[in-house]
Amino acid sequence: MTGVTRGWDGLSGRNPLVGFVDACLRGAAQVVLQNNPLTGLLILVAVAWGAFENGQPRVFGGAVLGLVVGTATALALRVDRTSLRQGLFGFSPLLTGIAVPTFLDDRPLMWLYLVLGAMATTVVTLALNAVFKTWGLTAFTFPFVLTTWVLLMAAYQFDRFTVLTNAKPMFPGEGTSTGGSFDWDLVPTFLRGISQVYLTNSWVSGLIIVVALLVNSRWSALFAVVGTVGATLLALWFGADGASLDKGLYGFNAVLTAIAVGAVMHRPGALVTAYTLFGIVLTLFVQMALATVLTPLAIPVLTGPFNIATWLLLLPKRHFAPVPNHERVKETVVSTVKHTV
Amino acid sequence: MTGVTRGWDGLSGRNPLVGFVDACLRGAAQVVLQNNPLTGLLILVAVAWGAFENGQPRVFGGAVLGLVVGTATALALRVDRTSLRQGLFGFSPLLTGIAVPTFLDDRPLMWLYLVLGAMATTVVTLALNAVFKTWGLTAFTFPFVLTTWVLLMAAYQFDRFTVLTNAKPMFPGEGTSTGGSFDWDLVPTFLRGISQVYLTNSWVSGLIIVVALLVNSRWSALFAVVGTVGATLLALWFGADGASLDKGLYGFNAVLTAIAVGAVMHRPGALVTAYTLFGIVLTLFVQMALATVLTPLAIPVLTGPFNIATWLLLLPKRHFAPVPNHERVKETVVSTVKHTV
Amino acid sequence: MTGVTRGWDGLSGRNPLVGFVDACLRGAAQVVLQNNPLTGLLILVAVAWGAFENGQPRVFGGAVLGLVVGTATALALRVDRTSLRQGLFGFSPLLTGIAVPTFLDDRPLMWLYLVLGAMATTVVTLALNAVFKTWGLTAFTFPFVLTTWVLLMAAYQFDRFTVLTNAKPMFPGEGTSTGGSFDWDLVPTFLRGISQVYLTNSWVSGLIIVVALLVNSRWSALFAVVGTVGATLLALWFGADGASLDKGLYGFNAVLTAIAVGAVMHRPGALVTAYTLFGIVLTLFVQMALATVLTPLAIPVLTGPFNIATWLLLLPKRHFAPVPNHERVKETVVSTVKHTV
Repeated sequence: MTGVTRGWDGLSGRNPLVGFVDACLRGAAQVVLQNNPLTGLLILVAVAWGAFENGQPRVFGGAVLGLVVGTATALALRVDRTSLRQGLFGFSPLLTGIAVPTFLDDRPLMWLYLVLGAMATTVVTLALNAVFKTWGLTAFTFPFVLTTWVLLMAAYQFDRFTVLTNAKPMFPGEGTSTGGSFDWDLVPTFLRGISQVYLTNSWVSGLIIVVALLVNSRWSALFAVVGTVGATLLALWFGADGASLDKGLYGFNAVLTAIAVGAVMHRPGALVTAYTLFGIVLTLFVQMALATVLTPLAIPVLTGPFNIATWLLLLPKRHFAPVPNHERVKETVVSTVKHTV
Repeated sequence: MTGVTRGWDGLSGRNPLVGFVDACLRGAAQVVLQNNPLTGLLILVAVAWGAFENGQPRVFGGAVLGLVVGTATALALRVDRTSLRQGLFGFSPLLTGIAVPTFLDDRPLMWLYLVLGAMATTVVTLALNAVFKTWGLTAFTFPFVLTTWVLLMAAYQFDRFTVLTNAKPMFPGEGTSTGGSFDWDLVPTFLRGISQVYLTNSWVSGLIIVVALLVNSRWSALFAVVGTVGATLLALWFGADGASLDKGLYGFNAVLTAIAVGAVMHRPGALVTAYTLFGIVLTLFVQMALATVLTPLAIPVLTGPFNIATWLLLLPKRHFAPVPNHERVKETVVSTVKHTV
Repeated sequence: MTGVTRGWDGLSGRNPLVGFVDACLRGAAQVVLQNNPLTGLLILVAVAWGAFENGQPRVFGGAVLGLVVGTATALALRVDRTSLRQGLFGFSPLLTGIAVPTFLDDRPLMWLYLVLGAMATTVVTLALNAVFKTWGLTAFTFPFVLTTWVLLMAAYQFDRFTVLTNAKPMFPGEGTSTGGSFDWDLVPTFLRGISQVYLTNSWVSGLIIVVALLVNSRWSALFAVVGTVGATLLALWFGADGASLDKGLYGFNAVLTAIAVGAVMHRPGALVTAYTLFGIVLTLFVQMALATVLTPLAIPVLTGPFNIATWLLLLPKRHFAPVPNHERVKETVVSTVKHTV
């Protein structure tokens, strides 16, 4: 395996086209804060599986198109080469590329919308990283969140587009936002909580993503599972909506917070684990609050809660342990912190 | 008195438990930007009085629990000792501890909610102070505001909690948000405007808080009165809702702005007083606008308007007079500015 | 012409009153990022024309009053002289002075509201410029946007004021926000798109503003036209509301973005033009999204979308070409960047 990896790394350094493919694959992995092309490849398989399982192959097409357009836009804007090579300009456009065909109806103009959205995501990534650099942070997936919110809310004002979010604008507390039935089929729910990081509702995809994480970082895989289990059980205890719970919609933000706070930004340990468990609780609360804020607009929270909660958890700069756990993760930390150009 | 104060200061320096109690008492006083344990003790008496007068003793229990949990969380996160000792990690969790039993229904799980909320308030205090330090500011009570908004909005999504804010989500302009009867019983209304800083509806509590301010800073007491009188009369002139007016709800944000801008952050004087009067007007306008924004979500403005208006008033860095008026206040300025760790 | 200009410049340097008038005239021009008193004078003519054509002379009175009060407030707060002289404290209060009589009903108290609003706009300009300086940006017209939003939203809570925005609070997607008839009278629509920068619905005013731009910068005039044409045609293609389209309401934000990104902040050229065209698309999308966000509050987007889009476009710091195109523009760039004190 090491030989294959070394061969690929060398080839992607020499051949610009292979280098671009490598940057795109790493982009797919950087959503879950990993810097590894094999992880990215497995994740694209997971996204493809979910798209075909749910009868929406165009979602996979959107994912690949967003990833390529976003990375190419970064190339055209001559961003920092190292960040580009590590996939740091691919992960947000990839998610925008998944979100547009998921939430807008299928028509040719949707693809123009998607391409413009992926380009905008890269510009917003550069802009927000410049802002967050002030506090030693990066924008994480917030460029995707902001751009997709804008795209969906703009679609309300255009006759040519229809938003399909399974929700209609209403006041918080109206409708059946709480209660509902949950079938207690817990393990698939936990795995769907992981697949929903990529807006995918499939326990098989969730399982493939866990494997993709294991390829690069055992700690990241472990904390991903801790995140989805913790947030889902807490949501269940407090009486959240059963249908959303079943789809894994209370897990995915906590998955990202747990990976970031528990495995990537700090060296895993007892204190860090305690802080991460608190972070999972915080993420769920922020998610529920954001869902209330967005109820009158009927748009989804996306990964906004992960971004907000993780900024709040990292800003106090509690350096629980200065040394990351192993080399691959260390590399990821550096590259993630170097998001900016 | 000086002897007693000196004795207490010495004791709290030597004995860690007395030191913790001292930090908590100062925390109760730092809501109104004072660094004095006696002021804090009197304020806790005022909160207790209001809680029992209104038949809600659990609100006083929540206040003490929030204060203790928030300060203890800061201790566990090993924050800057000086800031901790001055009560700068107690005042926001204290307010969160008052808000949770005030706005959520009474059930055992509410206390878990309160403890998690007080812990989150301390993390958010550290996070927002790191952000505001960039512009030489602190987050004031905004960590309480943000955390409590999140707690209340999240409660909408949980079957196990019910929000009790005397309001239901509606569009601005609907309902009876303007007009209403006001009984012209002005002096108690002004005093309730001061007690509402601690979410307390009691003119007796307001009077005790004025005495608590006098103990530490005559200027602060004076500007607190100017703030509640000015904002209440302006709201009355412009035709604001009579019922809210009567409860002192248009006074408390201006009280805090007036203390901060008129007595603590600048040396009191003619120009500063003119700027403070303008600041009282600005605070009322921001409060009314924020009330409109929050109408569809049916959550209260809390002390958000004070924070927003005071940031806007302090950011221009108009140093009207460089020297604070006396030693105690100078100390408070330094400690308030040093919120960060 | 040069002789007259030189004579005026000399006079305004010597005579404080003429200097104040000069600062006010430049303030009227700085809305469209020009530093030229003649441009400002022509723009005031355009605003007056629109006000009388639409039977609302008090709107012109409000414009002049806002401009004078805002600039005088800056003088009283002893801001940086150079910025003051370049009109950088006049342009936002001018717009607030137009917005208040446009959106509130006509009664004596409205004028007090306007004066307080113009003063607040200057304080907010100082505050936000202090914040944006961190990233090498200025607040542009956002102080006007923020203050006017606060004034309009506060008016909902006061019996004495009535908001007249031709809209009532509703959920996005309700009402006739899309479709509607458009009479394909394109050229007047494009010109109204330019006049709407000053909240004015008149193609004659739009034409005068184009002339006012030509007096100072051909590139600014060209990009203003490109902005209104581009955004209006895109809105038409995507099926935006016909009535708003006809009034030029989809043009004015893009006009400002195109001037800022295409002509003032970068040296005009092929790459910059491509980036500006993308910026026009981005501005329209942000405008539509913001319109959706504000639908439940029934307040207008004002020039918020221009500010947000232009910050996002400038933050990545893509210096397409380091040298501004000619001296006048260079001067404007410097003065705009030096907004802060």
